[in-house]
Amino acid sequence: MIFRYPNGKPYEPKEQIKPKKQQDITYSNRGMTLEEDLNETNTYYLENKLAVIHKKPTPVQIVHVDYPRRSAAVIKEAYFKQSSTTDYNGVYRGKYIDFEAKETKNKTSFPLQNFHAHQIDHMKNVVDQGGISFVILSAFDTCYYLEARHLFTFWNRQESGGRKSISLNELNEYGHKITLGYQPRIDYLKIIDKLYF
Amino acid sequence: MIFRYPNGKPYEPKEQIKPKKQQDITYSNRGMTLEEDLNETNTYYLENKLAVIHKKPTPVQIVHVDYPRRSAAVIKEAYFKQSSTTDYNGVYRGKYIDFEAKETKNKTSFPLQNFHAHQIDHMKNVVDQGGISFVILSAFDTCYYLEARHLFTFWNRQESGGRKSISLNELNEYGHKITLGYQPRIDYLKIIDKLYF
Repeated sequence: MIFRYPNGKPYEPKEQIKPKKQQDITYSNRGMTLEEDLNETNTYYLENKLAVIHKKPTPVQIVHVDYPRRSAAVIKEAYFKQSSTTDYNGVYRGKYIDFEAKETKNKTSFPLQNFHAHQIDHMKNVVDQGGISFVILSAFDTCYYLEARHLFTFWNRQESGGRKSISLNELNEYGHKITLGYQPRIDYLKIIDKLYF
Repeated sequence: MIFRYPNGKPYEPKEQIKPKKQQDITYSNRGMTLEEDLNETNTYYLENKLAVIHKKPTPVQIVHVDYPRRSAAVIKEAYFKQSSTTDYNGVYRGKYIDFEAKETKNKTSFPLQNFHAHQIDHMKNVVDQGGISFVILSAFDTCYYLEARHLFTFWNRQESGGRKSISLNELNEYGHKITLGYQPRIDYLKIIDKLYF
């Protein structure tokens, strides 16, 4: 039902539609996945001509395909493959952007087993080639942008027998917090602007 | 058997090991696909730290997955999806690289139906964002690098009712020929160097 002012203009209950304070929005209470939020963010960037960044398709090893009709192919047997790169890449202001996104329910640290060696190697190659490489980590009800160079430090520590995770304190020290919003939801370009432009 | 000169230096039959003239190597007589050659080229670039460029996985819509054991997932029903981007992207000297590769057996022109509207839109977005966008076309026993801006011209001509292909003469005028080699096979970075650096 629409209430109207005497001049016919509809009454808009401004107080009620005000969004909650952004700090209140976390993954635990929103029922959205990190991937969904990043996809919406990238769609927002694309539609507003801010950046062209896509998630890569899941790599699949196709073994058997049926062609019941000339027009339609049905994949009948296939397997998930491990990706040799990160999931997201694209271009922002001419620069190559490359990142991986991971979340943990862990309360005290971010386990490094969320990454595999191939991905770390890929990120190193990207950095060596002058690309912008980072990870978006959702942990402790917070969203962090962590530059690849810091991830390499934690990875190397693990390789040489050290701890197998990034502690909450470390993430707060080396990561950049991204305040979750509505449009775009995870505005990581803001951090890139600050770091590179 | 090694023949030796009186000074002990082995005789090298230079004439015989000379490779064929590069112009002689074409797709029609080599039995390699354009995709295989590009994958080998990209592997060469990666291993020699020249560029980080990968082919994206084929996009697949997964409908049904079986888990016969905890460790193994088998995709039992899936369908090929149309990609909304191009197949290849990555980074070269900090710049974003994005391209599509297509071949034709047609002897007189390159049919534009090899591309779909989504891909053209994607290439336009990449160009607008300052990325390097192009297509690699294998046609008339030649490999061409065609800048996206020229492809847009031919595409727009088709959209406004003009011819549905790029003629051999046009491709020779606007495209850059890539001489096929051994390592790397399709050295497209050479063209990028000439055009952008």
